[in-house]
Amino acid sequence: MGFREHLEEVVSRVDGAVACTLMGVDGIEVDAHLAEAGGPDVRNLLVEYSSLFRLAREAAEAHRAGDLRELTIQTGEVLTVARLVTPEYFLAVALRPDGNFGKARYVLRITAPKLEAEL
Amino acid sequence: MGFREHLEEVVSRVDGAVACTLMGVDGIEVDAHLAEAGGPDVRNLLVEYSSLFRLAREAAEAHRAGDLRELTIQTGEVLTVARLVTPEYFLAVALRPDGNFGKARYVLRITAPKLEAEL
Repeated sequence: MGFREHLEEVVSRVDGAVACTLMGVDGIEVDAHLAEAGGPDVRNLLVEYSSLFRLAREAAEAHRAGDLRELTIQTGEVLTVARLVTPEYFLAVALRPDGNFGKARYVLRITAPKLEAEL
Repeated sequence: MGFREHLEEVVSRVDGAVACTLMGVDGIEVDAHLAEAGGPDVRNLLVEYSSLFRLAREAAEAHRAGDLRELTIQTGEVLTVARLVTPEYFLAVALRPDGNFGKARYVLRITAPKLEAEL
């Protein structure tokens, strides 16, 4: 399975998912799948969120909190769940606010090791 | 009830909670309650995480994603759940990695309006 197929599978398995991306913590997208057009500018939102990963990682390292693993960001219009695949890449899924948050966390947790094996 | 009593109640109600703070998004603490000493430097970790709030809010505004509501950050040693109380203040609880994540989200959701009324 290529990256794109994994991203499509995440979107299809999580109720309310609108986009999934594999991205470097530098904000450069490796691949992405968008389920629908319109609404918030999810793709660029995820690019901007990549800077949160860098900041959170630095904060965790500075205060002996261990490796960064997961970040979730809920706004009025978009619920984002992101999981580090390797220290340099993360997998993120954006959901509608009524999307299945628990399922998103679960699906990212099982998908991340598959992507890691292919990176 | 004062701020401190609300923070103590959050820690006592959530299994695995080690600290709870009410903080400005500028990183200045209004009040905090720490359940235990030792381990990661949770208090300063939460101060550093405040910059994530500012960044996430700016990203959400720039991409029509609505108001920022909640942020969670999971590292190997600390699971943090934070919820905006007002646009300027957030309530955050830090848990051990095996702490009750769902309960933390729930307790912050019901506690935030009580703090908002007193801010």
